[in-house]
Amino acid sequence: MMTQVIVLNGGSSSGKSGIVRCLQAVLPDPWLAFGVDTLVDAMPASLRASDAGIEFEPDGEVSVGPEFRTLEAAWIEGIAAMARAGARIVVDEVFLGGANSQERWLRALGELRVLWVGVRCDAAVAAGREIARGDRTSGMAVSQADAVHRGVVYDLEVDTSRAESMECARTIAAHVK
Amino acid sequence: MMTQVIVLNGGSSSGKSGIVRCLQAVLPDPWLAFGVDTLVDAMPASLRASDAGIEFEPDGEVSVGPEFRTLEAAWIEGIAAMARAGARIVVDEVFLGGANSQERWLRALGELRVLWVGVRCDAAVAAGREIARGDRTSGMAVSQADAVHRGVVYDLEVDTSRAESMECARTIAAHVK
Amino acid sequence: MMTQVIVLNGGSSSGKSGIVRCLQAVLPDPWLAFGVDTLVDAMPASLRASDAGIEFEPDGEVSVGPEFRTLEAAWIEGIAAMARAGARIVVDEVFLGGANSQERWLRALGELRVLWVGVRCDAAVAAGREIARGDRTSGMAVSQADAVHRGVVYDLEVDTSRAESMECARTIAAHVK
Amino acid sequence: MMTQVIVLNGGSSSGKSGIVRCLQAVLPDPWLAFGVDTLVDAMPASLRASDAGIEFEPDGEVSVGPEFRTLEAAWIEGIAAMARAGARIVVDEVFLGGANSQERWLRALGELRVLWVGVRCDAAVAAGREIARGDRTSGMAVSQADAVHRGVVYDLEVDTSRAESMECARTIAAHVK
Repeated sequence: MMTQVIVLNGGSSSGKSGIVRCLQAVLPDPWLAFGVDTLVDAMPASLRASDAGIEFEPDGEVSVGPEFRTLEAAWIEGIAAMARAGARIVVDEVFLGGANSQERWLRALGELRVLWVGVRCDAAVAAGREIARGDRTSGMAVSQADAVHRGVVYDLEVDTSRAESMECARTIAAHVK
Repeated sequence: MMTQVIVLNGGSSSGKSGIVRCLQAVLPDPWLAFGVDTLVDAMPASLRASDAGIEFEPDGEVSVGPEFRTLEAAWIEGIAAMARAGARIVVDEVFLGGANSQERWLRALGELRVLWVGVRCDAAVAAGREIARGDRTSGMAVSQADAVHRGVVYDLEVDTSRAESMECARTIAAHVK
Repeated sequence: MMTQVIVLNGGSSSGKSGIVRCLQAVLPDPWLAFGVDTLVDAMPASLRASDAGIEFEPDGEVSVGPEFRTLEAAWIEGIAAMARAGARIVVDEVFLGGANSQERWLRALGELRVLWVGVRCDAAVAAGREIARGDRTSGMAVSQADAVHRGVVYDLEVDTSRAESMECARTIAAHVK
Repeated sequence: MMTQVIVLNGGSSSGKSGIVRCLQAVLPDPWLAFGVDTLVDAMPASLRASDAGIEFEPDGEVSVGPEFRTLEAAWIEGIAAMARAGARIVVDEVFLGGANSQERWLRALGELRVLWVGVRCDAAVAAGREIARGDRTSGMAVSQADAVHRGVVYDLEVDTSRAESMECARTIAAHVK
């Protein structure tokens, strides 16, 4: 029973992208990697800063509007279709809505075999890394650190405040069938 | 009969991405934009420089291997599924195989209403823009300028050596239903 | 009498960076390229969005504060010192203060042999290119198109709404001694 | 006796840039940050892949040629001049030549008050982070991890395999006068 999709969920600056690149390096098959950033980059500039789209508040809060949700639903269907067509896929997500966000993916992924991974990182550590990266709105790391995990159910969890990206990737890879 | 997918095909440095961003700005509905770059970025680093994946030769030739083709097929299915799920999508493509590449998209897009757009640019102009951009392997623009259009059938063509991106986008938008 | 510094001045999205890369490609000697973007990237994040630093207004207006001016003065001295130490340098600038901005450079460059180049672009064309680039605050192109040239004296001017970057670069290169 | 320049030296993927951004955030005055990447970005594309310029070997070895050295010498003079003109500056360096590289900076910085900081990172950890970043030639981290520190004399050293960027930055900031 081959794993078809790996979904990583964690807050901003929790280190998901680094884990994804390490996973792609250590998994023997080629896996495609997509994330919420892929979707946001695909949106019109106007939707990235409007009530209908996505908003990055000065304090790091992120909210998304109805047009974002509509496009996101189609995006999730598309990812599921890619997996059904034979591509193995790692998804790098930020479940702003916690359990509700996971529910959206669960419905679309249906019968596909999914490995759900929680990527934890102490809020204070993530806040420091947000400054070190220098390319994110300050405050996102702290405001998302716990909220994105609320009610979400995982097959395994890793913690980047306690392990390097590569180590987390090896732990996850050991659960991939 | 609403247009569901716009496929832009043109060589490297022909100005497709600029047209796509202008299209997203002038079309009244929100359209998602994806391209072959989205797919390449999603691949493992190892596939980006191997016989099984994609190769950028020093002279600008690009060739893709069997594993690239397999993942690309699933990717195309996924894009089609997103369109069927209701997202309007602009695809920014480089048909390295000319008519054969179009055929792959045609099969996957099936009954979807597609607007096929050729993006032309004089080879010499594209070569100059490749140097001006500074982030592409030198030679790609020239080697792809004509080859990618071989045998491809379009609903309309634009030429970025004769018109600005915004002007091309307005021409295309006028054909979108 | 060898040219030691080339200063290009033009508004946002007028095409200066593309000309600079083409210049580096066509000039026989290696030239270093720096610009106001190099300076802004070197500043602390806090100065990039504060009254003391630089501000990008929603309408595209850019204003700089006293701490920005202090660091900029030292930056200009440093560029002049690099040229005196033997590096040939292209500077890519946006003279928000018109003639006053040029005066600051004139004083620091002193006895160095400088080629002053104005990079023009029709405001409407630059506005379209700003949308095509997708990475600039909307409105900067229009608000700067004419203002940055006010009172500035040039050795030659090029116009990117009428010529490709490479063609402009060749025109400039022909004036380099 | 105010510190005028902070020089951080460490191998590729040792975490210098992250420390620099944290330093800029925690130091009360505004500091400009430059690095060898600023210089490489300023060079013509041709020098970035030639015997006269800089070469990134497939195994991660980096070598620089005579034209690179000439431009680098002028660059270092320029940085020193900026500091003399009153800007406080953090330099992010990779001393490929160990003690010889430091000697070049020592000569140019002359009487300026400099804080020399060694940024250490276990080679195995840096190699993992190189994969996690995904934008560096594989092998650079390992080949540089120890070599860049050979014979170099520091005021203090930090180790990013044992402390977060922000923690390292606070340690360094405590030594800034």
